[in-house]
Amino acid sequence: MRAFRDRHIGTGASAQQTMLRLLGHDSLEALMEAAVPAGIRSTPEGIGAALTEREATERLAELAGRNTVRRSALGLGYHGTITPAPIRRNILENPSWYTAYTPYQPEISQGRLEAIINFQTMVSDLTGLDTANASMLDESTAVVEGMLLARRVSKASSNVFLVDADALPQTKALLRHRAEAVGIALHETALREGEAPTGVDVFGAFVQYPGASGRVWDPRAVIDAVKADGGVVVVGADLLALALVESPGELGADIAVGSTQRFGVPMGFGGPHAGYLAVRSGLERQMPGRLVGVSKDADDYPAYRLTLQTREQHIRREKATSNICTAQVLLAVMAGMYAVYHGPDGIRRIAEDVHLAALRLQAAARAAGVEVVHDDVFDTVRLRLPGRARQAGETARSRGVLVHVVDEDTLQASVDEVWAETGIGDLLAALDLSDAGAVEPSIAMPRTTAFLTHEVFATHRSETSLMRYAKRLADKDYALDRGMIPLGSCTMKLNAATEMEPVTWPAFAELHPYAPVGDAAGTLAMIDELSSWLAALTGYDVVSLQPNAGSQGELAGLLAIRGYHRSRGDEARDVCLIPASAHGTNAASAVLAGMRVVVVTTDESGDVDIADLEAKVEAHRDRLAALMITYPSTHGVYEEGIRRVCDVVHGAGGQVYIDGANLNALLGHASFGDVGGDVSHLNLHKTFCIPHGGGGPGVGPVAAKAHLAEFLPQDPRTAPITVDGLTMGALPVSAAPWGSASILPISWSYVRMMGTEGLTAATGAAVLAANYVAARLREHFPVLYAGPSGLVAHECILDLRPLKEATGVTNDDVAKRLVDYGFHAPTMSFPVAGTLMVEPTESEDLAELDRFCDAMIAIKAEAERVAAGEWTLEESPLRRAPHTAGSIVRDWDRPYSRQEAVFPVPGVEHAKYWPPVSRIDQAFGDRNLVCACPPPEAFAD
Amino acid sequence: MRAFRDRHIGTGASAQQTMLRLLGHDSLEALMEAAVPAGIRSTPEGIGAALTEREATERLAELAGRNTVRRSALGLGYHGTITPAPIRRNILENPSWYTAYTPYQPEISQGRLEAIINFQTMVSDLTGLDTANASMLDESTAVVEGMLLARRVSKASSNVFLVDADALPQTKALLRHRAEAVGIALHETALREGEAPTGVDVFGAFVQYPGASGRVWDPRAVIDAVKADGGVVVVGADLLALALVESPGELGADIAVGSTQRFGVPMGFGGPHAGYLAVRSGLERQMPGRLVGVSKDADDYPAYRLTLQTREQHIRREKATSNICTAQVLLAVMAGMYAVYHGPDGIRRIAEDVHLAALRLQAAARAAGVEVVHDDVFDTVRLRLPGRARQAGETARSRGVLVHVVDEDTLQASVDEVWAETGIGDLLAALDLSDAGAVEPSIAMPRTTAFLTHEVFATHRSETSLMRYAKRLADKDYALDRGMIPLGSCTMKLNAATEMEPVTWPAFAELHPYAPVGDAAGTLAMIDELSSWLAALTGYDVVSLQPNAGSQGELAGLLAIRGYHRSRGDEARDVCLIPASAHGTNAASAVLAGMRVVVVTTDESGDVDIADLEAKVEAHRDRLAALMITYPSTHGVYEEGIRRVCDVVHGAGGQVYIDGANLNALLGHASFGDVGGDVSHLNLHKTFCIPHGGGGPGVGPVAAKAHLAEFLPQDPRTAPITVDGLTMGALPVSAAPWGSASILPISWSYVRMMGTEGLTAATGAAVLAANYVAARLREHFPVLYAGPSGLVAHECILDLRPLKEATGVTNDDVAKRLVDYGFHAPTMSFPVAGTLMVEPTESEDLAELDRFCDAMIAIKAEAERVAAGEWTLEESPLRRAPHTAGSIVRDWDRPYSRQEAVFPVPGVEHAKYWPPVSRIDQAFGDRNLVCACPPPEAFAD
Repeated sequence: MRAFRDRHIGTGASAQQTMLRLLGHDSLEALMEAAVPAGIRSTPEGIGAALTEREATERLAELAGRNTVRRSALGLGYHGTITPAPIRRNILENPSWYTAYTPYQPEISQGRLEAIINFQTMVSDLTGLDTANASMLDESTAVVEGMLLARRVSKASSNVFLVDADALPQTKALLRHRAEAVGIALHETALREGEAPTGVDVFGAFVQYPGASGRVWDPRAVIDAVKADGGVVVVGADLLALALVESPGELGADIAVGSTQRFGVPMGFGGPHAGYLAVRSGLERQMPGRLVGVSKDADDYPAYRLTLQTREQHIRREKATSNICTAQVLLAVMAGMYAVYHGPDGIRRIAEDVHLAALRLQAAARAAGVEVVHDDVFDTVRLRLPGRARQAGETARSRGVLVHVVDEDTLQASVDEVWAETGIGDLLAALDLSDAGAVEPSIAMPRTTAFLTHEVFATHRSETSLMRYAKRLADKDYALDRGMIPLGSCTMKLNAATEMEPVTWPAFAELHPYAPVGDAAGTLAMIDELSSWLAALTGYDVVSLQPNAGSQGELAGLLAIRGYHRSRGDEARDVCLIPASAHGTNAASAVLAGMRVVVVTTDESGDVDIADLEAKVEAHRDRLAALMITYPSTHGVYEEGIRRVCDVVHGAGGQVYIDGANLNALLGHASFGDVGGDVSHLNLHKTFCIPHGGGGPGVGPVAAKAHLAEFLPQDPRTAPITVDGLTMGALPVSAAPWGSASILPISWSYVRMMGTEGLTAATGAAVLAANYVAARLREHFPVLYAGPSGLVAHECILDLRPLKEATGVTNDDVAKRLVDYGFHAPTMSFPVAGTLMVEPTESEDLAELDRFCDAMIAIKAEAERVAAGEWTLEESPLRRAPHTAGSIVRDWDRPYSRQEAVFPVPGVEHAKYWPPVSRIDQAFGDRNLVCACPPPEAFAD
Repeated sequence: MRAFRDRHIGTGASAQQTMLRLLGHDSLEALMEAAVPAGIRSTPEGIGAALTEREATERLAELAGRNTVRRSALGLGYHGTITPAPIRRNILENPSWYTAYTPYQPEISQGRLEAIINFQTMVSDLTGLDTANASMLDESTAVVEGMLLARRVSKASSNVFLVDADALPQTKALLRHRAEAVGIALHETALREGEAPTGVDVFGAFVQYPGASGRVWDPRAVIDAVKADGGVVVVGADLLALALVESPGELGADIAVGSTQRFGVPMGFGGPHAGYLAVRSGLERQMPGRLVGVSKDADDYPAYRLTLQTREQHIRREKATSNICTAQVLLAVMAGMYAVYHGPDGIRRIAEDVHLAALRLQAAARAAGVEVVHDDVFDTVRLRLPGRARQAGETARSRGVLVHVVDEDTLQASVDEVWAETGIGDLLAALDLSDAGAVEPSIAMPRTTAFLTHEVFATHRSETSLMRYAKRLADKDYALDRGMIPLGSCTMKLNAATEMEPVTWPAFAELHPYAPVGDAAGTLAMIDELSSWLAALTGYDVVSLQPNAGSQGELAGLLAIRGYHRSRGDEARDVCLIPASAHGTNAASAVLAGMRVVVVTTDESGDVDIADLEAKVEAHRDRLAALMITYPSTHGVYEEGIRRVCDVVHGAGGQVYIDGANLNALLGHASFGDVGGDVSHLNLHKTFCIPHGGGGPGVGPVAAKAHLAEFLPQDPRTAPITVDGLTMGALPVSAAPWGSASILPISWSYVRMMGTEGLTAATGAAVLAANYVAARLREHFPVLYAGPSGLVAHECILDLRPLKEATGVTNDDVAKRLVDYGFHAPTMSFPVAGTLMVEPTESEDLAELDRFCDAMIAIKAEAERVAAGEWTLEESPLRRAPHTAGSIVRDWDRPYSRQEAVFPVPGVEHAKYWPPVSRIDQAFGDRNLVCACPPPEAFAD
């Protein structure tokens, strides 16, 4: 009966009064009036009153009931798969996995890092390439990343990229949209076995293997020819097929990309899933995306960490290998666990059963006199039905089966693990075919090399063993279910169980993304509602939920700005102004939208330097495309001058892009559209409660004013394009029309259960919490930046540089020492080196906020003991942090006690989180790159 | 694609070969032929081929779809409730909670013990009584237990028990069946406020408060009068009502009983739920059921444990306070967490809202000119509709609402948390009433005393906080998701996620147990299938799934034997022969079935002593009712003479009761019915995969030959009885007609996914595992008892008495030391004092079996160091076990190292389970009884 907002918000009325007293404000309203500049305040409309948790669940159940889940044989990169129930229950539905943060603090993330390295090993093994990353957003964006990687490393001078005519249609559409923006010309051509492509110089090529049409063929001649001219070859490969056919690595590919969806991750009407990207040796330092590697800890024990981070956009900015921040960690963990559970024999058996089912379909077609287009196939059978393909597709649908109609004369059906298990009787009947009896396996390009040879893929064959492995890994990690994760700008708030439960309902989880829109009536109604709410809350006119990460939303927004300028004949507008303090992604995205980055400085209060802005605008007046700005600022401050900033840019014909990373400080109190933004991306995994999943998935919708609407990713229902028979929306940025549709019920539920008032109250509580922490810690650590009222927004920056100067203690030392106190560290050195940025969010209660402040104060006191000479820095509990159980068990020759090491304050002992490794040697891992499972002997005690 | 059996069974073909080699058998079949006596082997029929996990889920979904969940206003002890989603996800659906064992090893069960003590505190607070137990099976059995407790402690000499005519109908039915067997006469009478009952001497009385008819009244006059004559008063109270009305304790009750179902536990078509029983000071040592108390550990830290276990049947046998073993721990944990989450204000608000909704219904009825029977009510409104009550009930049902039709002229409707949240519009419409507007709260007997005043009920108001609390508690406990729990005779096998998932499907979870049978068509079809499979597997003709624990199944079986004899005029047959090695429950149940226990000795090989049996049969030939025997024996041996034993008993006109505790050693290889049993109870939480839930729920179906069928609990569809308008089955032993129906999909799935062959293979794997452990450990610990082939069945008894004699090391020391090695101890001192009984089950893999054997061997070596004088026993790691993290952090003056203490063998360090407390002082807890939450100061560091 208690309103959901009172469950979501950690501080009740009485706690808030206590906190407000410290800040000298009478009420939350008064605090917000003081914090948020008067000139930007506005109140959103159009959300309506909050539903209770039960009501929201009932409404979603009703929407789910409006979906029609037909048996899919559509294929095209999305396949039915059987999620092992222990993986669903113990990982996908387990907050210890889904509430974890990105593993930037590797010492407290060893569980999911091990799970990801299993994933990387799986991809590397199956693709026959040396290094696989920690996942990509989806298959088609992985192809784009492969193309961009090829361009970076290609020795050929051409700007042409060869595209296999037998590529997936959505990949072709995405390539067209993305290549144009960065000046790459595509050359699409039909590739033939044994024939080198002719008549065009290319810097690289993309080959789909098996082809979208189902053919299994030998692309060596193509690959060899492209490579012979200095080009780089990207092969898009079906990971399950690779259990049976020669791997891209064996064929000579430089890069392999694809999806791991069919490894146990439901189709979910498009996502999220984990795409993959693997490269041959020599390209690993040019790879996009996250990469997990093996290093060692202070005790020389093997320890996992994100490696080669210097490639990434948060460090390299516009020179990064990609704009992608997020990996699809939770889904990669699931896919890796699917391989762990099935093992090489199990994966091969599934692939064989799928293949046999496809052959059986071929045989049935031939027996009925239907022409089969390709003899050699894995799972997809293309049939020639002159003049009657469309009707046959319709008939199949009416019988509950979805097949892909390529054109009037052609349709194709793909079988999968589910068809293989249940038999293809329904599929044959839907196509008016009769079973022609058993078939013999017969695969072209048979694979002869082993895969999944590491012990982990042979150990957990029983559910008991798998359950314990998942638990053992989860036990190593610190997630929101243990305590606060005060990550600045990452908004690690509650992911409520009521929000999460619908994600695994079959009616949402089992839809193919290209099912007829009528089959997804409930999901689409949910998406339309959520879109309208997000527009109302941000003050924009239109929202696209297609981008499956913030980086992709950003890119989509910038591409919209680009499209807008070009539609007005402003081809020259390509300058993107970005404040020095911006997220690195901003710059990387601008480059991918074909823009040049010009940096605007910030003044000493952390705000955009208006004078510099005006100067830069003036200097680039005719070429000004956009300003990208984050609001509240990345310094956690409500800049007073935001309207003025927008006016200056608009005055020069530029568009204003407001990065939505900090929306949690604004919701209900002001809106991007109202303060002058033209377009923004949101991060549903920040403000709107999609869990971080240990480093993904994210969802990054893009919201804009009406004048940009036609340049955003389009809805297939209103602005369709058709490629090879597949209908999608124009200007796509993701493989699936509605991106990561299966997790949108989370944000839908959050908004619906909070209502306008709840969201407004949550913002207030978040701002109150940040200011409370700032006020309690200010005397111990200087708080950088604040608004004129002396208040911060939803986060505060603690300056540790004075401490370092006085004691030598670094922010790394403080961050690792916090682990011993039972905390995840705040954001380190962003946006200012040598600082910690703390965002407590509204979901933490006062006891937890105080526990954190007390820990920080105690750590400060420890640093003072270093300064006083009581401990040397090297032998202090700060530098030796975090402390494992092993360290206190073994001989102890340190100047502080074991008690001080691991139970530094009362209360820790009886709720102790034990880090599984001590401090990790970061440099060692970068120097000695190992990105696959180490041999078991490495872990010998 | 892998068969479920290969996921359920931990040892694959290659591991089994390794194990068989050690045992000198060529195949599993050969092993089983050697182990199981040829004369008893048989093959079950009628189960059919195994389904895959996906197929089983689809079939259950189809059955669930055949249920019709109407909105219930039936009341009668079962109410709609809103399970908080974080409780469902983090507890009910979390293997860390549901796979835990009964907390016999308290050091590794502190999490659930704390959760249960929260439950006890909640019940004690709300009932106003001093001590509440850890839960009862359901409300009606709790009333029976209250009556039996009253008889034990009453000073009155009467054998008459007064029963409130306004008691719940199912309680009346249960009392009638149970009282008769133990010679108690019931006197049912209408009780009136201010009037003492007259005309009968009673030893005690039962008062329903509020009444089943909904009335809230003052029973003080009744209570005072019964007590004045030395009688004992049991009050059945609605726990939610007690938030508003004076408590049973304040009214003078000695005992309060009831259900906690409406505290967040779904109705589930009858169960499982947690009943409760609380007593005034002075009665606690006479209470039935489990009781959690506070003691202290070796470091004087507060620690929870089961207290006063000497009351219980496993120690007191036929002199026990009850035959109940199982508490409803998982459900009690949920109900306690519901109170933790809502707190006193939240519970009161829910009660008030429910009450207001009831008053609103009253007002609407009055406005329509309908007579309202009771002015003073809590949640239930009884209406007089002369001659048209039945039709009105039908009309309501057709409109989607269920009300209780008492008779032709009377119906009643109960509102609940769901009605209060959604409003009663649909209820009014269903009854052709119109809303008469808002009402003022007006409760008779208003409560003025506080409840839920302990801090734990004020701390976890946000979901974040509750999630972390649940995680923190789970982290303290050792459950199957960490490692093996080799509990002899408890069969701690895999509880597969696919089996568990359907339990929380709304179509199964939200049915009222007295909904029309047509509304439960799917559940009943599932129950009928499961019943027929269980009959086929056990060789019986009929199965009742009603008993909601093994003890109740046992009782039902013995009552059936009693009924059978009496139906033949054999009133004198009341002797029940029980072997000395039997489970204590057997004897306790026999007493409750009105029988006298005569013990039969066992011979030195552990088998029933045939000569003694024959002598006892001869001595009691005319009074012989039954023999109770466990097969395989409680010694874990297939007794060769079982057929002979049965023949001897049958020859004297007795019936053979075979306890099904060890069925996991027999399934697929032999059956109880075939070897000579007449009736058995099964434990679905042993052989059939219902999880132990940390100490419950259990399900104890009773199976019998056809001649006993009519004396078992009857199906309401075929042998109905009607009490106060409520139709149920004759001869009930539970409050709900199909007992704990909502968890039966677990066993249904298990049988369906294993098929006959899978079940047969599982039995073989279990027997193989037990013999492997016995063979590996035999040279270190003598293995007591084996069959002629030298093989044990599914468990083995390790004799630690020689070790104790040689070294002083007790089996307690070994059990606690196993914790340091990362194991749950085996069963201690049952059936032989000074031994450990190990049942590995089929779900453990070879690595885990070896890890266990290695740990036992290492512990043996430690004991030898004690014997060698290297350590004194008192200062040895065995006696000081288990070792907490705190113990190694503090000063260390022990003769062994910290490493030896906590990481005694390689492999422990990186998967360490840390016990939260050191060895608990058992005697201190029994001497200083504290059964409610201790004050926070007690836990100060």
